[in-house]
This record gives sequence, structure tokens and C-alpha cells, in this order.
Amino acid sequence: MTVNILFAAQPDRWAEYQAPLGAALEKTGLKFCLTTEIAPEEVDYIVYAPNSELQDFTPYARAKAVLNLWAGVEHVAPNPTLRIPLARMVGGGLTEGMVEWVTGHTLRHHLGIDAHIVNPSNRWDPKVPPMAADRPVTILGLGELGLACGCALTNLGFAVSGWSRTPKVVADITCHHGHDGLKTALQGAEIVILLLPNTPATENVLNADTLAFMAPGSFVINPGRGTLIDDDALLAALDAGHIAHATLDVFRTEPLPADHPFWAHERVTVTPHIASETRPGPASEVIAENIRRGEAGEPFLHLVDRDAGY
Amino acid sequence: MTVNILFAAQPDRWAEYQAPLGAALEKTGLKFCLTTEIAPEEVDYIVYAPNSELQDFTPYARAKAVLNLWAGVEHVAPNPTLRIPLARMVGGGLTEGMVEWVTGHTLRHHLGIDAHIVNPSNRWDPKVPPMAADRPVTILGLGELGLACGCALTNLGFAVSGWSRTPKVVADITCHHGHDGLKTALQGAEIVILLLPNTPATENVLNADTLAFMAPGSFVINPGRGTLIDDDALLAALDAGHIAHATLDVFRTEPLPADHPFWAHERVTVTPHIASETRPGPASEVIAENIRRGEAGEPFLHLVDRDAGY
Repeated sequence: MTVNILFAAQPDRWAEYQAPLGAALEKTGLKFCLTTEIAPEEVDYIVYAPNSELQDFTPYARAKAVLNLWAGVEHVAPNPTLRIPLARMVGGGLTEGMVEWVTGHTLRHHLGIDAHIVNPSNRWDPKVPPMAADRPVTILGLGELGLACGCALTNLGFAVSGWSRTPKVVADITCHHGHDGLKTALQGAEIVILLLPNTPATENVLNADTLAFMAPGSFVINPGRGTLIDDDALLAALDAGHIAHATLDVFRTEPLPADHPFWAHERVTVTPHIASETRPGPASEVIAENIRRGEAGEPFLHLVDRDAGY
Repeated sequence: MTVNILFAAQPDRWAEYQAPLGAALEKTGLKFCLTTEIAPEEVDYIVYAPNSELQDFTPYARAKAVLNLWAGVEHVAPNPTLRIPLARMVGGGLTEGMVEWVTGHTLRHHLGIDAHIVNPSNRWDPKVPPMAADRPVTILGLGELGLACGCALTNLGFAVSGWSRTPKVVADITCHHGHDGLKTALQGAEIVILLLPNTPATENVLNADTLAFMAPGSFVINPGRGTLIDDDALLAALDAGHIAHATLDVFRTEPLPADHPFWAHERVTVTPHIASETRPGPASEVIAENIRRGEAGEPFLHLVDRDAGY
């Protein structure tokens, strides 16, 4: 039996994935057909990007799973026509890329690097930052990405706290959870990193009330989701100097509109949703492994809990 | 017997060290006198900064060791009046600070962060850097600091090579050594980090010939010593675009003179010799331990090989 795999994403993605995904599937030993065009009722697996034209899953009657190319599933998990298992991308270069980006920007703010990059008066001011051990960093979200970033930062000596919806225990990270734990997690934090999923419960988790818990002159780093921050509250906290700088990779509307005040604000750094990008090589291995599992009757990896929304 | 300890450094250092060094010495259980003024012939140990007024060690007839507050000893090791053991600072916050600074600037160049910090046209250009594993980084110098930085960078996934005068074997770092190994170590490197000591043999190790080995569009990071680089050759390589950017923390003259071309060059970042700074708390522990060892007849830690110059 040939396994029919529909690749449903933007055309430029197909150009990137056709070769590495084919190669990864070859290694499974399965007889397969990987294509962008096939009758819906013949499809066994859907390799999927949420910005694909495919939004109605109803005709895919025999499909066994939707295998998401992205870590984020907020644009597909609520789809009422989706009645088969949904797996999100974990690994595939996403985690490594996120760790690099988060560590880079955390060190940038910790060390005060911007003042040296832009130093028009050529000021020689040998001010030494505190040791990382004396710099409280809080990560909101202790999933795959939050944990990996937390470990990288504790390896560098940072004093890391974390917050998650449900209780977690992680070596070297002070873990808090639930509604009551959020204040404790943020209290006195000098660098806060947002790595929560986008769910109704996480919308505007950083707002006027919670920003106020952070230390005066602290930093916000958001590589998670644009909806996690109340933009107006953040701008007010930046203008008041309570937040010294925000580095933001994700936004409610992307690309960030030209007239959005984040662009012009001297205390905001905008990066264009690059913190964590799936790389075709490793991502293809993850997809192929899930198809192998599906055909072998083994449980899929990285299944989405669609009630929780991630 | 009271152990007489002379603190010979600039007056502002005494203000920083008096309390923590006294506390660290108390813990040794020795009876001691820590002071900035004492007859030279009564001094047992000299806690020393090379920019101290003390430059003639001849009168310190009974002193057992000079304990340097700095990692760098190039301004004291060649002193012909120094005939007793010289220990340099290792630890004392130096290593951690260096790892933070080197990792921060390596990630900054790897991720192309500058283009987001200074982005006057608000360009949204989601270009993803290569994975760290595909970014060859070479560290010149595999001493205490070079090794610590190498480990931090391999932990983040970077492909790290190293070069040292004598052969070394280090897990996960491709090690080269000696005159012939330098070309191999630099060949194709995209980020080169200088952490060699300042000796006659290391002067201008990065010059027109050796810069040419590096990959086109690569980066130079120098937290080591100003003398390691031929400034004119670096400027020429920057102007030619062969080197994309240089981040320099140390210079032949410090503070860097206002008319030095590094200040005005748009592809050079100057930081004011802050990559690694001794912190009084941990440094005091290192000094006190060496005095305890001296009194117990145990070998001193971190002795300088004065023939090698470090």
C-alpha cells in the first residue's frame, strides 16, 4: 500500500521541503507518494502549515493525522473541521534556534551591549554589569522551548525562575505555577522572557498589573506570541522608564504595520519573527518519524491537546 | 606570628577590597595584618595591581609571593626586581564575566542582532541565520578563559576550533597548535575570538596574512589583549569587506584615544575593557587561599611561568 502524503503549505515551502522530506521518508522504508495535489479522499497524512489554503479538513475522510510544520497551532487547533490527531513541530531546529535567539538577547540586555553598538559620543565608561548569578531572569512558559532556554541560561550562571500553568519541577530553575504563582515569578525579575502558547488564558498575561511586579529598569523579551502582551500597557511602562527596553519578535499583526508605535520607540527592538524557524532538514526527520509511527501503529509524537489549545 | 599583607593597588581598589579581603582572610584562621602602609622589610605577601606605584620589589626582602589582582601579568612578569613567586588571578569572577561577554558578542554577530537594533527604515526581513552547528568559531588561546568560552559555545551548539602554543586535547573542540596549526585553525573561520596572553610571540598574531585565512564576511572578537591585532591590517580588512565587523574590548592604548580610527569605523564596536573584570568578593577568596597555602607550605595556585610570560 502506498502512503499518500499531502504537502499543504505555501508554494515556497514546497521548494524547500520536497527534497529533504522525500529523503527522510525514503529512510522509513515506506512506499509513499509525497505531493501537493491529490484527491482529498486518498490522503493518508497532511503535512501542514496553518497559512495553507487548506482550511476545511472535512473531505479528508481517511487521513490519519495532520502534522504541523510550525510549533504554533493556534490557527489550526480550533478548526472545527479537524477531527483527526494534530501533531505540532517539536525539534526540527526550532529549539536550537530559540535557545540561540533568547540567550543572545538576554546577554545583550544583561551586558548592556546596545550602549556600545550605538555610542555616538565615543564614551569610554568601563561599567561592569552584575554577574549573571545576580541577575534574576524569569521565563513565562516551561514547555519544550522554555525549558531549553532556561537550561541554557542556568548553564551561563543566570538566576532563573519559571512559571507555568501546571506545577513543574526543574533542576536549577525556581518554578512557580498557576494564577497565584505569577506575581511571585515576576516579582523583582530584571529580564522576563515570554514563551507561553497563545491561548485565551495567556492573552495579555503581561499587562499593566503584571508589568508592575517586575523590577524598575527591567527588560521584556518576547519570542513567544504577540497576544501575550498588552501593547499599550508595555508602551506606557517603557515611557515611564519602569521597563528599560523590550525586544519583541512576535506581534498581533505580522509583518508589524509601519505605523505601529513599536517601530519608532527608541526602547523597543523589533525582530521579524525569526527567533525560531523550522529548518527543512531536521523538521523533515520529525515529520517522517511520525508517519512511520502512524503506519506502525505506534503513538504519534507531539500530539496537541486541543482542549488546552497546545 | 602575624602575617603582614601589603595591599598595593590604586586607592579606589582598597575601598573595594578592604572588607571582602579581610573577611576572606579571617576564614583562613591566620593572624594577619592587611594594610596599605607598612615597612617593606616586614611584608610577607604583596596583593598587587600592576598599575600600583610599587614597581621596585627589591626592598621586600622577606616577601614570599606577589599575588596579582589581574589576570594579565605582562606589566609585572618582566619586572627584573621581582625575584619571588608571582601568581595571577584566576577565577575571582573573571572567567564567568569573560564567558558572558564572549558568548553575548558571539551570538550577537551570529544572529545579526545589530541590524535589528539599528534599523532606521523599519525593514521587516525575516532572514534566518544558519544553525550554530553550521557556524565555525575559532578561539585563539586555550587557557582558563579560552577553554571556558569554548565550552559555553559548544554547549550552545557552535562548531568550535581552538589554537594554542602547545598541543591540547579538549572534548568537542577541534584543537590545533603551534605555528603550522594557526592557518588550519583560522581557515574558513566565521567568528574568531582572541584570548591569548600578551607575549612577544603573540604580538600581531592577527595580521594581514592571518586575517586572509578567515572566511569572507567574518567577525573578529578581541577580549584578550590589544597587542594581538595589527590595527592597520584589521582596518584594511574591514574596509575591504573581508571582515564584516570587529568587536574590540582591549587596545594598545587605553582608554582608546579619541582620534583612533576604531571609534569612527562603522564596522567596529569598541567596548571599554569590561569583558572580564575581577570582582572583589570572589577575587578575595582566591588571594586568601594562596596566602593560606603559603603559610601551610603548600604550593601556590596559578603561578606565572615567567619565562613564558604568563
